[in-house]
Amino acid sequence: MAGTDHTKESRQGESGQGGPAIILADPQLGENIGAAARAMANFGLSELRLIRPRDGWPNDYAWKAASGADWVIEGARVCQSETEALGDLNYIYATTARPRDMIKPVMTPEAAAADMRARIAGGQKVGVLFGRERTGLENDQITLADMIIMAPVNPAFASLNLGQAVLLVGYEWYKLEAETLGDGTRQDGPCLEPGPRMPGTRPATREEVIGFFEQMESELDMSGFLYPPEKRPSMVRNIRNIFMRMSPTEQDVRTLRGVISSLVRVHKRKKQDP
Amino acid sequence: MAGTDHTKESRQGESGQGGPAIILADPQLGENIGAAARAMANFGLSELRLIRPRDGWPNDYAWKAASGADWVIEGARVCQSETEALGDLNYIYATTARPRDMIKPVMTPEAAAADMRARIAGGQKVGVLFGRERTGLENDQITLADMIIMAPVNPAFASLNLGQAVLLVGYEWYKLEAETLGDGTRQDGPCLEPGPRMPGTRPATREEVIGFFEQMESELDMSGFLYPPEKRPSMVRNIRNIFMRMSPTEQDVRTLRGVISSLVRVHKRKKQDP
Repeated sequence: MAGTDHTKESRQGESGQGGPAIILADPQLGENIGAAARAMANFGLSELRLIRPRDGWPNDYAWKAASGADWVIEGARVCQSETEALGDLNYIYATTARPRDMIKPVMTPEAAAADMRARIAGGQKVGVLFGRERTGLENDQITLADMIIMAPVNPAFASLNLGQAVLLVGYEWYKLEAETLGDGTRQDGPCLEPGPRMPGTRPATREEVIGFFEQMESELDMSGFLYPPEKRPSMVRNIRNIFMRMSPTEQDVRTLRGVISSLVRVHKRKKQDP
Repeated sequence: MAGTDHTKESRQGESGQGGPAIILADPQLGENIGAAARAMANFGLSELRLIRPRDGWPNDYAWKAASGADWVIEGARVCQSETEALGDLNYIYATTARPRDMIKPVMTPEAAAADMRARIAGGQKVGVLFGRERTGLENDQITLADMIIMAPVNPAFASLNLGQAVLLVGYEWYKLEAETLGDGTRQDGPCLEPGPRMPGTRPATREEVIGFFEQMESELDMSGFLYPPEKRPSMVRNIRNIFMRMSPTEQDVRTLRGVISSLVRVHKRKKQDP
């Protein structure tokens, strides 16, 4: 899915300001930090904090893997302790892949996004904490969080890498933001009424559609397709229904008229050019 | 988020059977194929098809990147053409990162998951098509799809890698499955009626649809409609898109083939019936 539009102004400023901080505890590979930064940029987040990155900081592998999300990498803050990394936050979500033996409420990324949004609107500063690549967060780290985020994942194959875990949290955050920002890629509600959107054209008027139908049916009368007469009405209805189902645009109607005119000319031409 | 529970029975059997096929067109790097397979396993999908993988198949890098999703890699089917890869499917979603100049309906991954679920419940076989890493799907490939999936992404940094794109589609699919499988926290059920129901018939397979296209285009070549040659590809795409939008049934395809055959016969008949 390539397709960054460089003419579009980045939303990292506006959303980053209001979005959750992403905190990586004890990250091991630079590649994973970079993938996390890239995922953050994909979803308009920009505040990255690193607790004790194993291979030091800055890290060339992180830059490469960030694929251009430079401002996230440049702005990353390295911390030596959980207290330093989490100290200014009002509310913290800890991500885990499996239930822990800990009495702590659990939310999906989707529910957490709504929760974050409400808290941020109320003036709170929130952050999402991700653990070390292989082992995840330690219980002591989870203890510092208010809430656990657990994504619905196939329990028999639950291993998400760090970049993917950040991706899912960022995605749910942005999805909710996009609704508010009127981004339009999202339909209102789960039911698609009256149908998915069709960019760059207008629906044909009923007059235009009927004009096309009459042209086609007149040709089909001549060709003998709408025969015998007693079956004609149901055949016409059937064919009209097929085309109506595509919700034709004005441009569609013009194209289809051209197709019909051209098809019926084929034998004329053949006759003329023996 | 480490945390695979090896005591849990994998859901890949039950869900994979019913889930969408994942089709990667012209994938370049084995790592990305592996990441896609891993994401599929995370979300209970198992049917992977590869159209012309650049570096051949099997591919060691893919195995490594799959991180244990061996059954997905082992079951991958390599195809040499779009027709071979898509032929048995009734409904196809194409993923793109930006709007294309193509009149084709667009859905979010979330809405698409609900749509897939309803179609699969109705006996349809569905698939999601992903394009080459840097450039995405070509227009001719998108034309073969019924619907476009576009994830809400920061427009100024929209580049998702292949594994991440598969991850988002799989995640939304599994989220909906997980609700059904009993952890349902969601109150408002998804809309299970994507478009009008078409009683007494079944959606055309892609093979049937392509057969119709080829018949029509061959007639339009003879009639001179698809002229000049340099414009032919875009004209063909445009016409195919118009018909794809109706999600043709098997019966529609037969009717439309009859209409085309009849129209091109029109002048022959005139001569026979004085």
